[in-house]
Amino acid sequence: MDATASTPAGTGVAIVTPFDENGDLDEAALAGLVGELEARGVDFVVPAGTTGEAALLSDDERVRVVATVAEAASVPVLAGTGQPSRRRTVETTDRAADAGADAALVVTPFYYRHDQAALVDYYRSVADVVELPVYLYSIPSVTGMVLEPETVAALADHPNVVGLKDSSGDLERFQREVALTADAAFDVFTGHGGVYAQALELGAAGGVLALANVAPERASAIGDAHAAGDEAAARRENAALVELNRAVTATYGVPGLKAAMGMRGLPGGQPRSPHRPVGADTTAELEALVVAAEPTA
Amino acid sequence: MDATASTPAGTGVAIVTPFDENGDLDEAALAGLVGELEARGVDFVVPAGTTGEAALLSDDERVRVVATVAEAASVPVLAGTGQPSRRRTVETTDRAADAGADAALVVTPFYYRHDQAALVDYYRSVADVVELPVYLYSIPSVTGMVLEPETVAALADHPNVVGLKDSSGDLERFQREVALTADAAFDVFTGHGGVYAQALELGAAGGVLALANVAPERASAIGDAHAAGDEAAARRENAALVELNRAVTATYGVPGLKAAMGMRGLPGGQPRSPHRPVGADTTAELEALVVAAEPTA
Amino acid sequence: MDATASTPAGTGVAIVTPFDENGDLDEAALAGLVGELEARGVDFVVPAGTTGEAALLSDDERVRVVATVAEAASVPVLAGTGQPSRRRTVETTDRAADAGADAALVVTPFYYRHDQAALVDYYRSVADVVELPVYLYSIPSVTGMVLEPETVAALADHPNVVGLKDSSGDLERFQREVALTADAAFDVFTGHGGVYAQALELGAAGGVLALANVAPERASAIGDAHAAGDEAAARRENAALVELNRAVTATYGVPGLKAAMGMRGLPGGQPRSPHRPVGADTTAELEALVVAAEPTA
Amino acid sequence: MDATASTPAGTGVAIVTPFDENGDLDEAALAGLVGELEARGVDFVVPAGTTGEAALLSDDERVRVVATVAEAASVPVLAGTGQPSRRRTVETTDRAADAGADAALVVTPFYYRHDQAALVDYYRSVADVVELPVYLYSIPSVTGMVLEPETVAALADHPNVVGLKDSSGDLERFQREVALTADAAFDVFTGHGGVYAQALELGAAGGVLALANVAPERASAIGDAHAAGDEAAARRENAALVELNRAVTATYGVPGLKAAMGMRGLPGGQPRSPHRPVGADTTAELEALVVAAEPTA
Repeated sequence: MDATASTPAGTGVAIVTPFDENGDLDEAALAGLVGELEARGVDFVVPAGTTGEAALLSDDERVRVVATVAEAASVPVLAGTGQPSRRRTVETTDRAADAGADAALVVTPFYYRHDQAALVDYYRSVADVVELPVYLYSIPSVTGMVLEPETVAALADHPNVVGLKDSSGDLERFQREVALTADAAFDVFTGHGGVYAQALELGAAGGVLALANVAPERASAIGDAHAAGDEAAARRENAALVELNRAVTATYGVPGLKAAMGMRGLPGGQPRSPHRPVGADTTAELEALVVAAEPTA
Repeated sequence: MDATASTPAGTGVAIVTPFDENGDLDEAALAGLVGELEARGVDFVVPAGTTGEAALLSDDERVRVVATVAEAASVPVLAGTGQPSRRRTVETTDRAADAGADAALVVTPFYYRHDQAALVDYYRSVADVVELPVYLYSIPSVTGMVLEPETVAALADHPNVVGLKDSSGDLERFQREVALTADAAFDVFTGHGGVYAQALELGAAGGVLALANVAPERASAIGDAHAAGDEAAARRENAALVELNRAVTATYGVPGLKAAMGMRGLPGGQPRSPHRPVGADTTAELEALVVAAEPTA
Repeated sequence: MDATASTPAGTGVAIVTPFDENGDLDEAALAGLVGELEARGVDFVVPAGTTGEAALLSDDERVRVVATVAEAASVPVLAGTGQPSRRRTVETTDRAADAGADAALVVTPFYYRHDQAALVDYYRSVADVVELPVYLYSIPSVTGMVLEPETVAALADHPNVVGLKDSSGDLERFQREVALTADAAFDVFTGHGGVYAQALELGAAGGVLALANVAPERASAIGDAHAAGDEAAARRENAALVELNRAVTATYGVPGLKAAMGMRGLPGGQPRSPHRPVGADTTAELEALVVAAEPTA
Repeated sequence: MDATASTPAGTGVAIVTPFDENGDLDEAALAGLVGELEARGVDFVVPAGTTGEAALLSDDERVRVVATVAEAASVPVLAGTGQPSRRRTVETTDRAADAGADAALVVTPFYYRHDQAALVDYYRSVADVVELPVYLYSIPSVTGMVLEPETVAALADHPNVVGLKDSSGDLERFQREVALTADAAFDVFTGHGGVYAQALELGAAGGVLALANVAPERASAIGDAHAAGDEAAARRENAALVELNRAVTATYGVPGLKAAMGMRGLPGGQPRSPHRPVGADTTAELEALVVAAEPTA
């Protein structure tokens, strides 16, 4: 990938935010986790995103998360900075820049619903004033909001809007996003670990994956196989992870992911309320999936 | 209504947050608006709710909004304090208490989806530690989350959970909420101005209405007619406001409401981005509705 | 109610279609049921609707259902005749006319999705050629399609479109439907038993209720109380039936309704596959609700 | 593909049903269309499905459609036979068998909603008694119903349930369907033309495509490229058809498809009410897409 050293590309991890037994942010665990995940192959780190429980953090905690990751990481840091309003997003982005982030991932503004024209205005007016390069971020399963490919294409013309994370998992949509932004300097990432190999085949610049917290070696292996031109291997690796990916995202969410990380000795910590730790049945189900997805020696 | 002086009852206003031409919080306008709305009949004030664009405010702005309203108001103040996480909600509630609020309106935690059992845990763990009495708040059209009547009933047993604002407009649901909490000290409010008279007939303690920003006299007249035992008059008044209510809520949202307020000389101010001011066509439509809903001398 | 003898008004029953132990249409049971329900107070009968499992019948069975009901009934018969296409709806309506129906209830065409303009064309082109007066029918929980009040208003001008059954239960919508058709000869019915009393207060010509299969006495009592001017009594009666109504509609559907009918000695018969008879837990829950809703002597 | 001569495999066409200017079934046009599409490369034909407007046909018309196609085709015929009830589906399937179909495509029963357990019962009880091999069919965008992969897997054990058409376009789901039925004699097809190449890579037995009515040469070329082992070419061909595919399915539906067919001289005929012919703007948009997708000489 021909990007500069600070440009995200390849297999990124939507890193969790570890909390300690008191529910406080555990910066030491977070820093250690960054090191572990880098050592196991991830190409860039995305703190304070959906998987990072960013909406559950105070504004100050969020800055500390980004700073901790930026300090610990030697790979690019794409920080989640989206808030429900332009004011808050701009402030959060500026603080993330100061904390050492390389770029900003800005989720569609949530709580209120906005039409596509409002989203164009919103993103342009954010990108106009922040220093960090802006990546759009659409995750309709969480926000109930979709960024239409035509909207993405309209925004791709902005010099400071440089990419998109699409977590919909809809590959028709993904193809349209890639095609409609083909003439711009614009990178499209998938946020859906179940179809990462497919997205790479269709022109993705990489993935931003919750899955990479628990299976960093194998998630990275998908990207590596693709980069090596072995698409069949990439698909095979990805297929082997579909059930684990589902369990730690759509089915059991961040609590499931953190529990699964613990099974592999990775410091995910506890989820924060209203998230609740998973129960015994889910633990058993996750254990089977984690074992099945262990990297082969 | 047999409540104490600081207990919300009757016709409440989900007050807007005025911003000036720079997009800054306009506390003078807000204080003036409180006085205007009280003078025109509203029985209590609800700052920092959905209509108050609370999610678009910084945490400090939110405190200033509550403090400004509490200072200006002689009626009860029910402050919106819900955030996506328990930590943030507790902190916001404590700051609202310090700022003079009489009670806290806690929207279902947003961004992430939670099941009903998690919501029970969440609300109990908040109500356990905050000083202010807690009102539950369900607005599925915005959050995509529903508080089931059974969940409401389970929470009504908590000594510090004292009521509910249900903005769904579903009167079957409303009847179930009233019936299932009949044995508790628990007040059910509607947040839907289109069926306020009906909710009162079914046992509502009152309404928390965006509509009362633009039509405070007539919204209050619905509550007054009901209190006077004239249900037919209450329904008639309400029916006359259905189209205006829709326009300033479901159809055009806060931007429509603020525009309509301006037409009546009320200081709504500008909406905050990503909200956008309404266009000329909508303005004309709103003007006709505002004129049609003018209070008769 | 000032209608002619064959015009539906008041409390109608969306009558079930009894099947025997072989799954065959049980015309004797159906005829007997009509007599029972009339004797217990229902004002008109609606065969071959959603509750009548019309979509599960062959075209010939559907005609036999209408003919059996028309033969047995001394009250108006409003037959469900809606199909996915205009051709099939016209043919079904003509056959219902021949079978003795007084009017046709035409559900929004299902399977494919159509926009509001297509629905206007559709209903007009049906009403142009059929002899029976046409009632529109909107049941979004089943079809996923909504008839907007503006669409209803546009159709109310057609001389052969004479009314609407709105099963949404949304009383803001209901008020708008009544208001927007106030100048036409047009009757609006609710199809939602949980808010029947409220709909009557808001100008409904009556109700078309699944609930009236299992609680014909008490459903009719709601309409009678309203007709006698005692709205408080109507609301009280309705409130007492909310849980039973929910159980036999939204929660357990036609299988729940048929089981509950059996508990009261009414010949509902078996549901037809893919409907499945309710299990033991549901039976116990329904029994408690049926007992609680028994008419008082 | 190692199937017998009458087993669907490869690129199938979900063939439209042409109607003449009177709205009557045009059997001559249909027979001619079968010949055209076969000559242009389609591997099997699927009459009376969603694209075939089956729900808009009378039962007798539906039989005539299947008979006409079976008579005209030299490739396998997979006839749509799903109805809202088991009785109607069994009868329709038996009549399709008599009319010459090789297999039956049974959509999830529509109008009423059913849970997954009811769907298992339904499909088993149909497959138990019909002679034709049964293919499951899930198209949630139309029916609002999903067949979960676990449900598909449970049904794959039935000796007469031999495959699935999944039109969701969700490739995580698709991978799970393939994986969970890997041990059964069971073929999974995609019904989504936007991701046909991807589905083939993931183990699809083929596609059942509306797109193949208007672009039979190029849709077939995707399957041929895959069969020849050239996945990159398959993806490239597919990518070139994404916009046309969307226009003739999700965006403009059957009316859009029939209009586009006419532009290529293929006898699609008129859509049937409530479907309406597309307007001038859509026609112009479709023309551009059809030209862009013309097969290269």
